[in-house]
Amino acid sequence: MQTTPINFTEKFGLFSEQWSPKIIAKMNDYHFKIAKIQGEFVWHSHPETDEVFIVIAGEMQIAFRDGVAALKAGEMFMVPKNIEHKPIAEQECHILMVEPAGTLNTGDAGGEHTLEEVPWI
Amino acid sequence: MQTTPINFTEKFGLFSEQWSPKIIAKMNDYHFKIAKIQGEFVWHSHPETDEVFIVIAGEMQIAFRDGVAALKAGEMFMVPKNIEHKPIAEQECHILMVEPAGTLNTGDAGGEHTLEEVPWI
Repeated sequence: MQTTPINFTEKFGLFSEQWSPKIIAKMNDYHFKIAKIQGEFVWHSHPETDEVFIVIAGEMQIAFRDGVAALKAGEMFMVPKNIEHKPIAEQECHILMVEPAGTLNTGDAGGEHTLEEVPWI
Repeated sequence: MQTTPINFTEKFGLFSEQWSPKIIAKMNDYHFKIAKIQGEFVWHSHPETDEVFIVIAGEMQIAFRDGVAALKAGEMFMVPKNIEHKPIAEQECHILMVEPAGTLNTGDAGGEHTLEEVPWI
Protein backbone atom coordinates (compact mmCIF):
# COMPACT_ATOMS: atom_id res chain seq x y z
CA MET A 1 0.00 0.00 0.00
CA GLN A 2 1.38 3.36 -1.05
CA THR A 3 0.84 5.70 1.91
CA THR A 4 2.33 9.03 0.82
CA PRO A 5 -0.33 11.75 0.91
CA ILE A 6 -0.77 14.30 -1.89
CA ASN A 7 0.46 17.70 -0.71
CA PHE A 8 -1.14 20.58 -2.64
CA THR A 9 1.68 23.10 -2.08
CA GLU A 10 4.25 20.54 -3.17
CA LYS A 11 2.30 19.75 -6.35
CA PHE A 12 1.89 23.44 -7.21
CA GLY A 13 5.65 23.81 -6.87
CA LEU A 14 6.20 21.39 -9.75
CA PHE A 15 4.96 23.63 -12.59
CA SER A 16 4.50 27.28 -13.43
CA GLU A 17 2.28 27.43 -16.54
CA GLN A 18 -1.18 28.91 -16.14
CA TRP A 19 -4.53 27.53 -17.40
CA SER A 20 -2.88 24.14 -17.72
CA PRO A 21 -4.57 21.65 -15.38
CA LYS A 22 -2.71 18.62 -14.03
CA ILE A 23 -4.28 15.48 -12.59
CA ILE A 24 -3.23 14.65 -9.03
CA ALA A 25 -5.69 11.85 -8.18
CA LYS A 26 -8.34 9.57 -9.61
CA MET A 27 -11.36 8.51 -7.53
CA ASN A 28 -13.56 6.01 -9.37
CA ASP A 29 -14.04 7.73 -12.76
CA TYR A 30 -13.43 11.24 -11.42
CA HIS A 31 -10.25 13.29 -11.59
CA PHE A 32 -8.87 15.72 -9.03
CA LYS A 33 -6.95 18.37 -11.00
CA ILE A 34 -4.94 21.39 -9.95
CA ALA A 35 -4.30 24.55 -11.98
CA LYS A 36 -2.69 27.96 -11.70
CA ILE A 37 -4.94 30.59 -13.19
CA GLN A 38 -4.57 34.31 -13.87
CA GLY A 39 -6.56 36.55 -16.17
CA GLU A 40 -9.85 35.63 -17.81
CA PHE A 41 -10.71 32.21 -19.22
CA VAL A 42 -13.28 31.62 -21.97
CA TRP A 43 -17.03 31.44 -21.41
CA HIS A 44 -18.05 27.80 -21.53
CA SER A 45 -20.36 25.22 -20.02
CA HIS A 46 -20.23 21.46 -19.48
CA PRO A 47 -23.41 19.92 -20.90
CA GLU A 48 -22.74 16.57 -19.25
CA THR A 49 -21.47 17.35 -15.76
CA ASP A 50 -21.32 19.52 -12.66
CA GLU A 51 -17.87 20.80 -11.72
CA VAL A 52 -16.36 21.71 -8.36
CA PHE A 53 -13.77 24.46 -7.78
CA ILE A 54 -11.82 24.65 -4.51
CA VAL A 55 -9.42 27.56 -3.96
CA ILE A 56 -6.15 26.43 -2.36
CA ALA A 57 -4.33 29.79 -2.49
CA GLY A 58 -5.32 33.25 -3.68
CA GLU A 59 -8.66 34.51 -4.93
CA MET A 60 -10.77 33.90 -8.00
CA GLN A 61 -14.13 34.76 -9.43
CA ILE A 62 -16.49 32.58 -11.37
CA ALA A 63 -18.56 34.78 -13.65
CA PHE A 64 -22.05 33.67 -14.66
CA ARG A 65 -24.40 35.37 -17.10
CA ASP A 66 -26.43 36.64 -14.14
CA GLY A 67 -23.92 37.04 -11.30
CA VAL A 68 -20.43 36.44 -9.98
CA ALA A 69 -19.15 34.04 -7.31
CA ALA A 70 -16.11 35.41 -5.45
CA LEU A 71 -13.94 32.72 -3.85
CA LYS A 72 -10.85 32.85 -1.68
CA ALA A 73 -8.58 30.17 -0.18
CA GLY A 74 -10.64 27.76 1.91
CA GLU A 75 -13.75 28.16 -0.19
CA MET A 76 -15.43 26.00 -2.83
CA PHE A 77 -18.15 26.37 -5.43
CA MET A 78 -20.17 23.85 -7.40
CA VAL A 79 -20.92 24.93 -10.96
CA PRO A 80 -24.02 23.05 -12.15
CA LYS A 81 -23.92 21.36 -15.54
CA ASN A 82 -25.06 23.40 -18.52
CA ILE A 83 -24.45 26.71 -16.73
CA GLU A 84 -22.20 29.08 -18.67
CA HIS A 85 -19.29 30.29 -16.60
CA LYS A 86 -15.95 32.02 -16.92
CA PRO A 87 -13.16 31.67 -14.32
CA ILE A 88 -11.29 34.92 -13.62
CA ALA A 89 -8.32 35.71 -11.37
CA GLU A 90 -6.71 39.12 -11.03
CA GLN A 91 -3.59 37.70 -9.36
CA GLU A 92 -2.38 34.13 -9.80
CA CYS A 93 -4.71 31.76 -7.99
CA HIS A 94 -4.16 28.06 -7.22
CA ILE A 95 -7.22 25.88 -7.59
CA LEU A 96 -8.33 22.28 -7.20
CA MET A 97 -11.05 21.00 -9.52
CA VAL A 98 -13.11 17.84 -9.27
CA GLU A 99 -14.90 16.50 -12.32
CA PRO A 100 -15.38 13.31 -14.35
CA ALA A 101 -12.28 12.02 -16.16
CA GLY A 102 -12.35 13.31 -19.72
CA THR A 103 -14.14 16.58 -18.96
CA LEU A 104 -12.70 19.22 -21.32
CA ASN A 105 -11.40 22.36 -19.63
CA THR A 106 -13.15 24.56 -22.21
CA GLY A 107 -16.34 22.47 -22.19
CA ASP A 108 -18.51 23.24 -25.21
CA ALA A 109 -16.49 26.32 -26.22
CA GLY A 110 -13.30 24.77 -27.61
CA GLY A 111 -10.58 27.13 -28.80
CA GLU A 112 -6.89 27.62 -28.15
CA HIS A 113 -7.11 26.90 -24.42
CA THR A 114 -8.54 23.42 -25.00
CA LEU A 115 -6.41 20.66 -23.51
CA GLU A 116 -7.25 17.28 -25.01
CA GLU A 117 -4.84 15.32 -22.84
CA VAL A 118 -4.53 16.39 -19.22
CA PRO A 119 -1.21 15.15 -17.79
CA TRP A 120 -0.66 13.72 -14.33
CA ILE A 121 1.73 15.48 -12.01
CA MET B 1 -27.99 31.92 -9.79
CA GLN B 2 -26.89 31.48 -6.17
CA THR B 3 -23.32 32.80 -6.00
CA THR B 4 -22.32 32.42 -2.34
CA PRO B 5 -19.28 30.16 -2.03
CA ILE B 6 -19.01 27.44 0.59
CA ASN B 7 -16.53 28.47 3.26
CA PHE B 8 -15.02 25.49 5.09
CA THR B 9 -14.17 27.34 8.34
CA GLU B 10 -17.68 28.79 8.46
CA LYS B 11 -19.26 25.35 7.98
CA PHE B 12 -17.07 23.78 10.67
CA GLY B 13 -18.25 26.54 13.04
CA LEU B 14 -21.83 25.30 12.76
CA PHE B 15 -21.44 22.04 14.69
CA SER B 16 -19.27 20.44 17.34
CA GLU B 17 -20.05 16.70 17.32
CA GLN B 18 -17.31 14.35 16.18
CA TRP B 19 -17.56 11.44 13.70
CA SER B 20 -20.78 12.95 12.40
CA PRO B 21 -20.36 13.92 8.72
CA LYS B 22 -22.42 16.71 7.16
CA ILE B 23 -23.04 17.22 3.47
CA ILE B 24 -21.95 20.62 2.13
CA ALA B 25 -22.28 20.08 -1.63
CA LYS B 26 -23.56 17.66 -4.26
CA MET B 27 -21.75 17.27 -7.59
CA ASN B 28 -23.60 14.93 -9.96
CA ASP B 29 -24.23 11.89 -7.73
CA TYR B 30 -21.30 12.60 -5.40
CA HIS B 31 -21.38 14.27 -2.00
CA PHE B 32 -18.79 16.57 -0.44
CA LYS B 33 -18.99 16.00 3.33
CA ILE B 34 -17.16 17.56 6.24
CA ALA B 35 -16.48 15.98 9.63
CA LYS B 36 -14.68 16.64 12.89
CA ILE B 37 -12.79 13.58 14.00
CA GLN B 38 -10.83 12.65 17.11
CA GLY B 39 -9.81 9.25 18.41
CA GLU B 40 -10.01 6.02 16.45
CA PHE B 41 -12.78 5.08 14.06
CA VAL B 42 -13.72 1.49 13.18
CA TRP B 43 -11.91 -0.65 10.63
CA HIS B 44 -14.02 -0.77 7.49
CA SER B 45 -13.90 -0.79 3.69
CA HIS B 46 -16.21 0.38 0.92
CA PRO B 47 -16.73 -2.52 -1.49
CA GLU B 48 -18.31 -0.28 -4.12
CA THR B 49 -16.26 2.91 -4.16
CA ASP B 50 -13.02 4.81 -3.74
CA GLU B 51 -13.07 7.60 -1.14
CA VAL B 52 -11.09 10.83 -0.90
CA PHE B 53 -9.98 12.51 2.34
CA ILE B 54 -8.76 16.12 2.37
CA VAL B 55 -7.48 17.61 5.64
CA ILE B 56 -8.71 21.17 6.16
CA ALA B 57 -7.28 21.70 9.65
CA GLY B 58 -5.21 19.54 11.98
CA GLU B 59 -3.65 16.16 11.38
CA MET B 60 -4.97 12.65 10.89
CA GLN B 61 -3.79 9.19 10.07
CA ILE B 62 -5.41 6.60 7.87
CA ALA B 63 -4.37 3.18 9.08
CA PHE B 64 -4.23 0.29 6.62
CA ARG B 65 -3.52 -3.36 7.39
CA ASP B 66 -0.02 -2.88 5.95
CA GLY B 67 0.84 0.76 6.61
CA VAL B 68 -0.28 4.19 7.74
CA ALA B 69 -0.87 7.39 5.77
CA ALA B 70 -0.14 10.53 7.81
CA LEU B 71 -1.97 13.64 6.58
CA LYS B 72 -1.92 17.27 7.66
CA ALA B 73 -3.82 20.36 6.52
CA GLY B 74 -3.37 20.89 2.78
CA GLU B 75 -2.99 17.20 2.04
CA MET B 76 -5.30 14.60 0.54
CA PHE B 77 -5.42 10.83 0.21
CA MET B 78 -7.44 8.51 -2.02
CA VAL B 79 -8.49 5.28 -0.32
CA PRO B 80 -9.14 2.67 -3.02
CA LYS B 81 -12.35 0.67 -2.84
CA ASN B 82 -12.22 -2.60 -0.93
CA ILE B 83 -9.18 -1.53 1.07
CA GLU B 84 -9.67 -1.82 4.83
CA HIS B 85 -8.86 1.43 6.60
CA LYS B 86 -9.30 3.16 9.94
CA PRO B 87 -9.21 6.95 10.34
CA ILE B 88 -7.38 8.13 13.47
CA ALA B 89 -6.79 11.60 14.92
CA GLU B 90 -4.95 12.31 18.16
CA GLN B 91 -6.27 15.89 18.35
CA GLU B 92 -9.48 17.06 16.71
CA CYS B 93 -9.03 17.18 12.94
CA HIS B 94 -11.32 18.79 10.36
CA ILE B 95 -11.71 16.85 7.15
CA LEU B 96 -13.47 17.03 3.79
CA MET B 97 -14.55 13.77 2.18
CA VAL B 98 -15.67 13.12 -1.38
CA GLU B 99 -17.63 9.98 -2.21
CA PRO B 100 -20.81 8.81 -3.95
CA ALA B 101 -24.08 9.89 -2.33
CA GLY B 102 -25.27 7.08 -0.09
CA THR B 103 -21.83 5.80 0.87
CA LEU B 104 -22.03 4.63 4.50
CA ASN B 105 -19.43 6.13 6.85
CA THR B 106 -18.73 2.71 8.34
CA GLY B 107 -18.76 0.93 4.97
CA ASP B 108 -19.11 -2.83 5.39
CA ALA B 109 -18.47 -2.73 9.15
CA GLY B 110 -21.73 -1.26 10.48
CA GLY B 111 -22.00 -0.70 14.23
CA GLU B 112 -22.87 2.20 16.50
CA HIS B 113 -21.04 4.83 14.43
CA THR B 114 -23.15 4.08 11.34
CA LEU B 115 -25.06 7.11 10.08
CA GLU B 116 -27.87 6.08 7.76
CA GLU B 117 -28.99 9.62 6.95
CA VAL B 118 -26.24 12.20 6.52
CA PRO B 119 -27.67 15.70 7.06
CA TRP B 120 -26.84 18.80 5.02
CA ILE B 121 -25.28 21.75 6.81
